[in-house]
Amino acid sequence: MSGHVDRLLASFLKYLENNSFEGKPAGLYEAKNYLASLGGKRARPIALMAAAEAANGTIETALPAAWAFEMFHNFTLAHDDIMDRAVMRRGKPALHDQYDEATAILAGDNMMLFVYQRLMNNYPNEVSIPLMKLVTQTGIEICEGQFMDMEFEKLKRVKEDSYLHMIKLKTAVLLGACLKAGGIVAGADEQDLEYLYDLGLNLGIGFQIKDDLMDAFSDNPKLGKVKGGDIMSNKKTILYIKALELANEQQGLELKEWFSKEVANNSEKVQAVLALFRTLKVEENVEAMMNTYYHKAYQDLQKLSFNNQKMEPLQAFVGFLAGREH
Amino acid sequence: MSGHVDRLLASFLKYLENNSFEGKPAGLYEAKNYLASLGGKRARPIALMAAAEAANGTIETALPAAWAFEMFHNFTLAHDDIMDRAVMRRGKPALHDQYDEATAILAGDNMMLFVYQRLMNNYPNEVSIPLMKLVTQTGIEICEGQFMDMEFEKLKRVKEDSYLHMIKLKTAVLLGACLKAGGIVAGADEQDLEYLYDLGLNLGIGFQIKDDLMDAFSDNPKLGKVKGGDIMSNKKTILYIKALELANEQQGLELKEWFSKEVANNSEKVQAVLALFRTLKVEENVEAMMNTYYHKAYQDLQKLSFNNQKMEPLQAFVGFLAGREH
Repeated sequence: MSGHVDRLLASFLKYLENNSFEGKPAGLYEAKNYLASLGGKRARPIALMAAAEAANGTIETALPAAWAFEMFHNFTLAHDDIMDRAVMRRGKPALHDQYDEATAILAGDNMMLFVYQRLMNNYPNEVSIPLMKLVTQTGIEICEGQFMDMEFEKLKRVKEDSYLHMIKLKTAVLLGACLKAGGIVAGADEQDLEYLYDLGLNLGIGFQIKDDLMDAFSDNPKLGKVKGGDIMSNKKTILYIKALELANEQQGLELKEWFSKEVANNSEKVQAVLALFRTLKVEENVEAMMNTYYHKAYQDLQKLSFNNQKMEPLQAFVGFLAGREH
Repeated sequence: MSGHVDRLLASFLKYLENNSFEGKPAGLYEAKNYLASLGGKRARPIALMAAAEAANGTIETALPAAWAFEMFHNFTLAHDDIMDRAVMRRGKPALHDQYDEATAILAGDNMMLFVYQRLMNNYPNEVSIPLMKLVTQTGIEICEGQFMDMEFEKLKRVKEDSYLHMIKLKTAVLLGACLKAGGIVAGADEQDLEYLYDLGLNLGIGFQIKDDLMDAFSDNPKLGKVKGGDIMSNKKTILYIKALELANEQQGLELKEWFSKEVANNSEKVQAVLALFRTLKVEENVEAMMNTYYHKAYQDLQKLSFNNQKMEPLQAFVGFLAGREH
C-alpha cells in the first residue's frame, strides 16, 4: 500500500521543485528556498492529497493547497526553532543557524504571506475562503500551543490533560486541517469534512505520543535526534508525566531530581531515567494511550462516506503514519 | 481642519478598546494587547477611514479594515524591533523587551493571523478577497524592504535610488495600501483606487524623508528618540546619502570616517556631522526632495473623482501628515 504514499510524495516534490521562490532581495528568497527544502516526511501535503483523492478530487486540484499547508508548517518551524533555540532541523542546520535570526524571522513571515497568496491565486473565492479560514484558525491554535509548550518548561508539574491539549494545538490541529483542506478542494460535504478533521486530530495526537516514545525507546531515533534527547534536556514529555502518575513518593522524588538539573554524564542520566520508566511500565502505558488515539483515527476513517476504492491512498497514509506497515 | 483627524482617531480608539484580544493562554493575548496599545499617531487607520469617507463610505464599514491594517502594522513593528535590536517603541519598552523575544515573535505571528480573520469575518467575499490580496502583497513588500534595510547596514555606500526604493517598500506601500483599502470598502472604482494608492506612496515617501530630517534638525524629536540618534548609530539615512553626493573628496572622507565608528563623545560627533551637513546644504536639498513627493501627493489628491465636500477628511489627513497645519 505504500505505493500510494510514494506516488503522492513524488507529485508533491515535483510541484515544490517547479515552484521555488524567486524574488528580490535574493538573500530573502534564498532563505525561503532553504527552509522549503529541509524536507522531512512531507506528511501534511500527502495527507491533504490523499484526502482529496478519497473525496473524488484530483491531485492537480489539491497541489496548490498541499504546497500552501506545507509552507505554513515550515513558517511555524522557522519561528519555533528560534524560540526553542534548536540548532538542527531534520539533520541540517536550522534556518536561523544557517543564516541569522533576523533572516529566519523575516523568511518565516514572508513564507506565511505566500500561503495566503497561493490560496487566493489558485482557487475560486468559494474554495479559497474556507481554506483561508481553516489555515487562519489553525495557525492561531498553533501559536497558542507553542506558547503553552514554552510555559510548561517553567512549570514543575504538567497535568496529562494539559499536555494532551498542548500537543493537540501545537501539532494535531494542522494534520486535521490538512485532511479537511483535501476534502474542501474536492468538494466534500460538511459531515465528511468533520470526520476528516477528527481523523487528523486523533492521528496527530497518536503520532506525537509515538514521537515521545521513540525518543526514549527506539534504537533508531529520528534523523538529527539522539536517543534520550528529551531526557537530557529535561523535557516534560508524556513519558515523564505518565511516570510521575505511576510513581510512588520515592520514585517521584528521584524523577523530579533528574529532571531538575543538567548533568555532566548524560549517559548515566538517560540510563537511570529509562530504568525508572521500565520499572513503572511507562512504555506499555503510553503505548496503550497512543493506540487509543490510533484506534479512534481508524474509526473516523470508517465513518467517511467516500467510495471504498478511492479511499486506498488515505488508508495507506493512515497506516504510514500509524506505523502499521513498516 | 484637524477636527476631522481627531474625530477619526477617536472613532478608531473606541473600536480598538472594544476589540481587545481575549483568549488563552492569557500571556499570549496580554502581549498582543500591550503591542496594540503602544499607540502612536495611528496614521494608517486614519488614512483608511478618511479615504473611505472620501469615497462616500461610512466609518462603520471602514473600522474593521482600519483595525486589521493597524494590527498588521503592529505585527511588523514587533518583529522589526527584534531584528533591529530596538529597545524602545513610542517611549515605552518594545514588546520583546517588555516580555521576551519568543513572546514577541509569537504575538506578532498570532496578530498577523487575526488580521486575516478580521477581514474574512467582517466583509463579504467580494470585499475581503481584494483586501486580503492587498494586505498580502503589501506584507511581502514590507518584508523585502526590511531585508534591504538590514543589508544596507552592511554596505559602505547606498545609492539614493536604492534608498528611496527601500523606504517605499518598508514604509510607503502600507500607507498606499491603507488608502486603497478605504476605497475598496467604500466601493470606489479601479481608477480612484489607483490614485489613492499613489497618493499614499508619495505621502509615505515624503513622510519618511521628513522623519530622517527631524532626527537631525528638529529641536523637538519624536517621542522616544533623541536628536541626532541616526547619526550616533551610523544610520545611512537620506541625509547621509545626499551629503556624500554633495561632498568633495575631503568632506566625503570625513563623513565616512564619522559613520564608520562608535565614539565615546556622541555630542561631539553629532555636532561635527551637523556642521558638515550645514556646509553642504543637506537640509535644503533633502527638504526639496521631500516637497517633490508631497507635491505629487497633492496632485494625486486632485485627480480623485470624489465629491469635494466628502474629500475634507482626506485633505485634512494629507495636511496632517505633510505637516502643513501644525
